[in-house]
Amino acid sequence: MQKLVTNHTGLTDSGRPRVIIIGGGFAGLEIAKALNGFPGETVLFDRYNHHTFQPLLYQVASSGLESSSIIFPFRKRFVKQNDFYFRLGEVISIHPNDNCIETSIGSVKYDYLVIASGATTNYYGMKDVEDNSLPLKSIIDAIKLRNKIIRNFETALLTDDPEMMDSLMDFVIVGGGPTGVELAGALSELKRHVFPRDYKELDMNKMDIHLVESGSRLLGGMSEIASQKALEYLQKMGVHVHLNKAVKSYNGHEAVLNTGDKLVSKTMVWAAGVKVQPFPGISSEALGRGGRIKVDEFNRVKGFENIFAIGDAAIMEGGDPKFPNGHPMMSPPAMQQGQLLAENLKRLQHKQSMKPFRYNDKGSMATVGRNKAVVDLNVFKGQFRFQGLFAWFLWMFVHLISLIGFRNKFFVFFSWIWSYFSYDKSNRLIISRNKEGVS
Amino acid sequence: MQKLVTNHTGLTDSGRPRVIIIGGGFAGLEIAKALNGFPGETVLFDRYNHHTFQPLLYQVASSGLESSSIIFPFRKRFVKQNDFYFRLGEVISIHPNDNCIETSIGSVKYDYLVIASGATTNYYGMKDVEDNSLPLKSIIDAIKLRNKIIRNFETALLTDDPEMMDSLMDFVIVGGGPTGVELAGALSELKRHVFPRDYKELDMNKMDIHLVESGSRLLGGMSEIASQKALEYLQKMGVHVHLNKAVKSYNGHEAVLNTGDKLVSKTMVWAAGVKVQPFPGISSEALGRGGRIKVDEFNRVKGFENIFAIGDAAIMEGGDPKFPNGHPMMSPPAMQQGQLLAENLKRLQHKQSMKPFRYNDKGSMATVGRNKAVVDLNVFKGQFRFQGLFAWFLWMFVHLISLIGFRNKFFVFFSWIWSYFSYDKSNRLIISRNKEGVS
Repeated sequence: MQKLVTNHTGLTDSGRPRVIIIGGGFAGLEIAKALNGFPGETVLFDRYNHHTFQPLLYQVASSGLESSSIIFPFRKRFVKQNDFYFRLGEVISIHPNDNCIETSIGSVKYDYLVIASGATTNYYGMKDVEDNSLPLKSIIDAIKLRNKIIRNFETALLTDDPEMMDSLMDFVIVGGGPTGVELAGALSELKRHVFPRDYKELDMNKMDIHLVESGSRLLGGMSEIASQKALEYLQKMGVHVHLNKAVKSYNGHEAVLNTGDKLVSKTMVWAAGVKVQPFPGISSEALGRGGRIKVDEFNRVKGFENIFAIGDAAIMEGGDPKFPNGHPMMSPPAMQQGQLLAENLKRLQHKQSMKPFRYNDKGSMATVGRNKAVVDLNVFKGQFRFQGLFAWFLWMFVHLISLIGFRNKFFVFFSWIWSYFSYDKSNRLIISRNKEGVS
Repeated sequence: MQKLVTNHTGLTDSGRPRVIIIGGGFAGLEIAKALNGFPGETVLFDRYNHHTFQPLLYQVASSGLESSSIIFPFRKRFVKQNDFYFRLGEVISIHPNDNCIETSIGSVKYDYLVIASGATTNYYGMKDVEDNSLPLKSIIDAIKLRNKIIRNFETALLTDDPEMMDSLMDFVIVGGGPTGVELAGALSELKRHVFPRDYKELDMNKMDIHLVESGSRLLGGMSEIASQKALEYLQKMGVHVHLNKAVKSYNGHEAVLNTGDKLVSKTMVWAAGVKVQPFPGISSEALGRGGRIKVDEFNRVKGFENIFAIGDAAIMEGGDPKFPNGHPMMSPPAMQQGQLLAENLKRLQHKQSMKPFRYNDKGSMATVGRNKAVVDLNVFKGQFRFQGLFAWFLWMFVHLISLIGFRNKFFVFFSWIWSYFSYDKSNRLIISRNKEGVS
């Protein structure tokens, strides 16, 4: 039987300029959309055939949302955009001298290359943590985590051994950023409202949720008051928050902290840091903190004319006056960079000069649970810090409008209304044949 | 690190009678529900933690529905039912002399055992077909098939080799029952309405859908007119229907039929037959056609006092006057057997005699595409045969009300309305990291 994958991307040279975008996250999706009308080809490479709305992954992992309502097929999004081409594949290396990239489906030439490949989980070299903990960056990570949480409780019914019981019913979340805070809150809602109904045979007081943060406060990127409120909310919800503590080792059953404390759990979620995967072809001199690619104020990679990097993958040191150390690794700067770069590439085509990037920071927000969120807003030349019910509504509104497509917005909206009044999280599903199976 | 799975089901002997149900399909779910109020324990074993609404699996496979809207967590369904216990595990063997079963999570005693384990795909001993084709019995099968269909088209963009192109863009469905007919219809809708938008680079005329049926007509279980209409519909929709032909071999690339015809396709869906997996402990004398367990008119397994079999797993030969050769392997008889057996077990507890099972056949239906369905209805002492738009509405109505839970009904209803007006199937997702990955 013949080999079915060719070494040929199916992209033929049209003679018109070709922009290749690596990665369809927030940054890559925005520039691909904004390149509509660009006099040339737009090619998007991604290892998945869908965009993933990462801010809501934790709700998939905690059975609140179904996977398909927070992901969206790229082809569906770009059905109406001319000269747009999607390719399912991974980029292996970049060859700037030949203006081409090598990918898992063959090599292809570019006129402009846009690296929007985002960041991956950073285990800071701790192999045992990497092997035994779960990340939460992709939809598959979320489904795996959901499978594991539910499976743990099914298994907890089978044991009398108290340590085994702890290991199955306790959870360790590492990293006090939005992901860690939101997941901890969602798990405590499962503990309070859902699992007591599902697992009457178990003593839910035995379920402990640990949130470990090496810094002195949660949500380090936000205001002091937001951090303080998030901590209060989580503690009120029964989450054990460990500040100024770091995980030193984890064998899949017991986590040891730098303070010597030990936490027994079969399930550790690692949301403690990210790094950028280096691409062969981009020299290490071009890399800054966390492996992020150094770019100038036009998001052009240092030392290259036609290679750009945007979003988490890029770090604009000294370029943006208000952010001399680069921009936070969040979706807003990524999206704004994508939009401006699209405009700048069009300007280059029209022999106009590029505009420098200035991040318009409208603030940030995180939710902890029903009626509980924290918001830092920078609008109308003012700073607004508020928490609680209104913040929660604002959080939901902003996330709803940010989802792609009416259908996904509608399903998520309906699921939220439903959960709010039923106190239920309906997708308590193990979709997997093997124990740790994907989905 | 210690082993986390004990050899202990967590079920302690309460002294009250215990009914163990093997399998939560249509039959098992019905009896579990109907046992509400039974003076004793109801224990349901399943290898998944959710019920699967099999009649709509083909819509998940063809991107029309999301997986979570046709599956439902058992625990959620039985939250309010007292003395109900769910266990995630597989039954390994039955030990009638000790009134106990051995399972993947330990052994446990029963007073009444109900085998509702359904049927599995039957490859009639063709190893190569089993290894290279895809079944469509579980939600994971459906997601795998969806992944493969979409991945095939992504890969088809990469080839110039015409045979490779055929292999990727053609589909062979074996079995002209409802699953085969409905899937063939759904694929032809993808070909007509969805893929031309997604894959402008491909020539959709190259996409061929083959439906192979060894009998002389489709939908053998239905009326002649239904078979005839289904054939007309499919042919109008461009499906190549091969009647009186059987697959003799399939190497994952080329299928050879008993007529010598060859069909080139990387994707074969096998819906041509089912068989019942034998349980060690049930002697082969007790097995009838297709390995179905012989039962009397009370669904009691021949030769046992307190072991019963219902649904596809059971065959009631000679028991039901109207169905001397047993009942069709469909959900209605399965559900009716489950309901009656629950009543009979309650009667036994009250020292009353059991009622014999008589299948009330209200008819059957299948859908081929938008506005196209065939219905055989037996109601009001009459036989009604109709096809087309009204049949299609009736099909949708019956399937909607049969789904568990308002939320699933609502999501499916909304998805259908949405697809009807947009001609779209929105879940064109590959949720998988590895090539053939589950989900």
